[in-house]
Amino acid sequence: MYQSPTISYHGHHSPMGAHSSFTLGRLGASCGMATEKGAAADSSVYIGYRSASGVMHSFPFYKEMENEAERFTQSDEDVVATNHIFAEDEIERTYGWATDQFEAPGIRFSIYTPFESIPDPASATQEELAFASCPGTVIELCVENDSDEEWELFFAHHGTTPWMPMEGRHGLKGASTQGRMGFASVDPDVEEFIDFSVDKALGRTHTNTTFLLAPVAGLSARVAPGTTRVVRIAVGYYLGGTVTFNYPTAYWYNRYFNELDEVLSYTLKQAERSISIAKQRDAELASSGLNADQQFLLAHATRSYYGSTQWLDNGDPVWVVNEGEYLMINTLDLTVDMLFFELRYNPWTVRNVLEHFVERYAYYDEIFSPDAPDQMREGGLSFTHDMGVGNTFSPEKYSCYECGGIDRECFSYMTCEQLTNWVLCAGVYWVETQDDAFIATHKDILLACLQSLLNRDHPDAAQRNGLMGFDSSRTDGGGEITTYDSLDHSLGQARNNIYLAGKCWASYLALDHMLTSLSEPDAAAEALAGARRCVDSLTAAFDPTLGYLPAVLEEGNESAIIPAVEALIYPYKMGLMEAVSSTGPYGAYIEMLKKHLAYVLRPGVCLYDDGAWKLSNSADNSWASKICLNQFVVRHILQVDYEGSEKADPAHVRWQVYGSADHACSDQFSAGIPIGSLYYPRIVTAILWLEEQPVGQHQAEGRHEASEEVKMV
Amino acid sequence: MYQSPTISYHGHHSPMGAHSSFTLGRLGASCGMATEKGAAADSSVYIGYRSASGVMHSFPFYKEMENEAERFTQSDEDVVATNHIFAEDEIERTYGWATDQFEAPGIRFSIYTPFESIPDPASATQEELAFASCPGTVIELCVENDSDEEWELFFAHHGTTPWMPMEGRHGLKGASTQGRMGFASVDPDVEEFIDFSVDKALGRTHTNTTFLLAPVAGLSARVAPGTTRVVRIAVGYYLGGTVTFNYPTAYWYNRYFNELDEVLSYTLKQAERSISIAKQRDAELASSGLNADQQFLLAHATRSYYGSTQWLDNGDPVWVVNEGEYLMINTLDLTVDMLFFELRYNPWTVRNVLEHFVERYAYYDEIFSPDAPDQMREGGLSFTHDMGVGNTFSPEKYSCYECGGIDRECFSYMTCEQLTNWVLCAGVYWVETQDDAFIATHKDILLACLQSLLNRDHPDAAQRNGLMGFDSSRTDGGGEITTYDSLDHSLGQARNNIYLAGKCWASYLALDHMLTSLSEPDAAAEALAGARRCVDSLTAAFDPTLGYLPAVLEEGNESAIIPAVEALIYPYKMGLMEAVSSTGPYGAYIEMLKKHLAYVLRPGVCLYDDGAWKLSNSADNSWASKICLNQFVVRHILQVDYEGSEKADPAHVRWQVYGSADHACSDQFSAGIPIGSLYYPRIVTAILWLEEQPVGQHQAEGRHEASEEVKMV
Repeated sequence: MYQSPTISYHGHHSPMGAHSSFTLGRLGASCGMATEKGAAADSSVYIGYRSASGVMHSFPFYKEMENEAERFTQSDEDVVATNHIFAEDEIERTYGWATDQFEAPGIRFSIYTPFESIPDPASATQEELAFASCPGTVIELCVENDSDEEWELFFAHHGTTPWMPMEGRHGLKGASTQGRMGFASVDPDVEEFIDFSVDKALGRTHTNTTFLLAPVAGLSARVAPGTTRVVRIAVGYYLGGTVTFNYPTAYWYNRYFNELDEVLSYTLKQAERSISIAKQRDAELASSGLNADQQFLLAHATRSYYGSTQWLDNGDPVWVVNEGEYLMINTLDLTVDMLFFELRYNPWTVRNVLEHFVERYAYYDEIFSPDAPDQMREGGLSFTHDMGVGNTFSPEKYSCYECGGIDRECFSYMTCEQLTNWVLCAGVYWVETQDDAFIATHKDILLACLQSLLNRDHPDAAQRNGLMGFDSSRTDGGGEITTYDSLDHSLGQARNNIYLAGKCWASYLALDHMLTSLSEPDAAAEALAGARRCVDSLTAAFDPTLGYLPAVLEEGNESAIIPAVEALIYPYKMGLMEAVSSTGPYGAYIEMLKKHLAYVLRPGVCLYDDGAWKLSNSADNSWASKICLNQFVVRHILQVDYEGSEKADPAHVRWQVYGSADHACSDQFSAGIPIGSLYYPRIVTAILWLEEQPVGQHQAEGRHEASEEVKMV
Repeated sequence: MYQSPTISYHGHHSPMGAHSSFTLGRLGASCGMATEKGAAADSSVYIGYRSASGVMHSFPFYKEMENEAERFTQSDEDVVATNHIFAEDEIERTYGWATDQFEAPGIRFSIYTPFESIPDPASATQEELAFASCPGTVIELCVENDSDEEWELFFAHHGTTPWMPMEGRHGLKGASTQGRMGFASVDPDVEEFIDFSVDKALGRTHTNTTFLLAPVAGLSARVAPGTTRVVRIAVGYYLGGTVTFNYPTAYWYNRYFNELDEVLSYTLKQAERSISIAKQRDAELASSGLNADQQFLLAHATRSYYGSTQWLDNGDPVWVVNEGEYLMINTLDLTVDMLFFELRYNPWTVRNVLEHFVERYAYYDEIFSPDAPDQMREGGLSFTHDMGVGNTFSPEKYSCYECGGIDRECFSYMTCEQLTNWVLCAGVYWVETQDDAFIATHKDILLACLQSLLNRDHPDAAQRNGLMGFDSSRTDGGGEITTYDSLDHSLGQARNNIYLAGKCWASYLALDHMLTSLSEPDAAAEALAGARRCVDSLTAAFDPTLGYLPAVLEEGNESAIIPAVEALIYPYKMGLMEAVSSTGPYGAYIEMLKKHLAYVLRPGVCLYDDGAWKLSNSADNSWASKICLNQFVVRHILQVDYEGSEKADPAHVRWQVYGSADHACSDQFSAGIPIGSLYYPRIVTAILWLEEQPVGQHQAEGRHEASEEVKMV
């Protein structure tokens, strides 16, 4: 079986849409349950067993493990009992797509995070919706006592707000804090406790279970010599009432559950079903054909994605993905990357986000050329970078992020890129779902997007070259940036950027495709002409002296970037296979990109020495999510390989398990060290890799089957 | 004017009953607004002005001041501007009873925390209740620009959750976070901003005010050369809906205010009235006759008290004082100490808490003698230590604190002491208010209290000696403790403790007084007999060889404690002047206590070398609140002085301003270092000192006048 280089790294363990996680796995680190937090909980989890003679055996799921170990492991000869904290080499961790399992001598601990299609509230049954939205997670603790004395297994959690014991309500034993999170079991042999430590609790140093002042609540059960006991526990979350600001919404699960106790009770009742789905997902990934490193990365990304999801309710469903540690709401340049994952499982969430942007976060601007910043021209429609931050929705038509007065640096506007992002999401969504009503409803928006895209090239049609040439008036004389906001101009500047130009080309193709279907032949033709201008400019810009296409087609920029090819994903996913073929209408462009790749995918250019990918040769700042996406384009769409390509996946695994060990899955790395975008949802671009496998497998495991499971189970 | 030894210490600045504080004052420390937190906010406040040439002048109300200072103060010769952070010796702080003012060159910053009688909801008008409960605080910033360039004053606050600008709603400029706290001004010349720092904001490095991602929100206003500008700002808090668990309540202010914006708007509208009340309080304290150290201690205690108060609503008012850093709800052994303060301003809160204990936190137990722990006898009624913790109400009849199975150590039961506490509160409340209906309603409770108190001495009447001799069955074979829970047995053990015996004596007197009034002559006589037994035992236990009354009358204990005299406060406050007189019925006891004091109030016994009080000679653990109370008993009731007594007050000030500088007013000190009970409300026992002043003054400043002010203003 595959072993990642270390087992000591955090993973999210989250229900779908609850923006909550039982994050755990990094040894000797803070961990535990947390809700609406852009980082691992600052708590401790105690899992293990205590022998009748008082020796504690436990996993090191808490901070200052080493100090604690010293404190427990007494060399004093008078003390017979020495407590034992499992060392890393005693623990085996199996990290499946939906099961995370830790085994140490005598004990096995499993966390099940099943996921499947989130059913569309417009058509699903109450029961389906309750199951999908239930904010609980099943864990299982198995202790096999091969000794000749009684053991007592335990699961306990440190809290920073008071624990309240369950005291048998709904048949539950366990504890909750402020009704917001808690854990419980319905096992009749389990006892609940609250104390200053597990050791004190199991030592029965006091006699009541209502010791609300003490910070450690837990469950224990006796395991007779020579027997095995399995205890099933639910961890759960509950936030009732309005949870967002400036645009009131509640959690969707409020519809089915009135309080945490009901969540925990339901989670335990549905445990078999949850475990079964988790095991199905594990099996799918194991038999996917992905190599072991890829399997790890996809599983890791999937967990971080669900940890950031937030299924809200304002009368209608409101789908939100929070931007990892930053907690920005539905960042549109993340939406376009997570699109492939969401379309596989629940396309309705994509439409939900796109329409939310249309309703509240679309705006019209003017534009200007950097040569004449005071001369405003007609701009057009675009969309904000995000919808707010930390449950606080921004005022309509504004993101929480974009500021005027900034010239091509972090926090400037992303007007052009967000325009392409909305168009590309719409196009891929429509093709995947055949939701003709969607494009029909938004025909005027699509036409406005086309005009806006054309204007941002040049308001004077005769002077257009297909690239973005004008900046938004919203920048107040500054200059726009791309999603690569903290990179240098090679990927950070929007204007005349070849990465963004690729997205413009793909957007024109998407608009052509949709407008043709909408019987708007003139507009479709205009879109197609835009696409042509774009690739022609790009193809012509290939610099044979340099050997590649420079990143920004102005001011002598000579950066070499991998994402020159990124946008091929969109026509590919829209089924426009001719568009990405060397023999199709854009064949020269495709061939040029292959030449470009042949140059850049070399050590010292866009490869680190260890084989990891460096998105730009001029900046030590690389995004894991974008690497996954570009890998798919390179390997699968362009069928390009290069010397040493087998070194990339293991290197990217090391970024996560060593570099980002405290932050679960992270996105932005500088030479393997995460420098931002921690605890991040975006890396589910790795879902694309499943399509690289032999034909048939993808279909068999795709969303259609996932939907069927809901009915089946 | 009086100067405390340092100006660098935190003070609470809180509205009444909102459990919220704008805590600030310690230089270079975290500070700011926080709600329901048992510590100073982990934030930063920026107050100062920026010259047109870009030099920032600011108070160091943020952490890592020194590093920041280094960063700002550039020695690079190319940089002309050097920013200036006011040093401690440039700042003058005036710490009145209700005004805390900081002055530095060119700037004055004042925080007004008016307090007065909280009107009884049973009889007060909506307008009175709204004003008293409004969770807002007025601050004033005055900048006097004597330079020849324009200055820009600023007030800004760092946030850990997103700021949302006011954008003129209700005419307000400012910002709020998650609708829970914020600040605003209605000054038309003020601008609002959100940015990464004040410097960036005033440098206008970006152009929009909706930059929700940035952590620093603030207000600024221009000050022309040669002019002075005063800006009035409200800081406020708002928690809507149910805020407590296991016993749902909302904040009382929800009745008058629907959201934070309304709180801020109202606070600004009522600013003159608030400032006027604050200035009245300042003037009262200044003319109180208390020495400067005492004035400081009372002002400091008052702020910490209000910071812990929580005026809740479950249809009827629910009064809660949180136990400082521990957040325990209505700890009864604090209630009995804060009684004098609450009776001065709002006696209805005392009755409210006492009746809440009767309804939900009274219980009956059995009792046992330590000689025969398995032989249970009839115990009786008592009350729990507290009602829960951290907004989580304990299950009925249980505190969050008390555990069985513990023998005279922290977290054991305080059954006997809490019984006396309830009785003493009831007695003093009744005498002060002449609320005959209260004792009539609770006559059965009073009778049950008497029986319980008698039984805890000895269930067999013939064997009673007036002292507690039996422990509660709730201890499960352990032993009870007193409120001095972390002290050694001299004050920590309840059984046969002379401190608790004093409270038993006072409780018998209170019961006699109330039951006489209730025409229960037999029960009253039994109570009086109990009081007699108690003082006779205590008087006889004086050890002439030792020279004092040892703390615990068993097992050869020889500790010497000051609180032997503590309980005299209760008969004194009940007007039973004969009971505390050397010539009265307990004259021998009173004389014995004076001899005791003559022995213990000496360096090396119960005085530290610097003159501070040490409650027990056998433990380096002293409670500031209890010192204040015992000082009053010693100085005013017993009229005892001792050599070096003038050194005590300055020493106790040093405990607070040096030892507890980060924690506002704290209670539990070990040689001047706070070791627990930080950020604590209980020190308002210092209110008693006002009664030591010339006759007439106390009456003039008491609650009657305070009540009149409500009508007057």
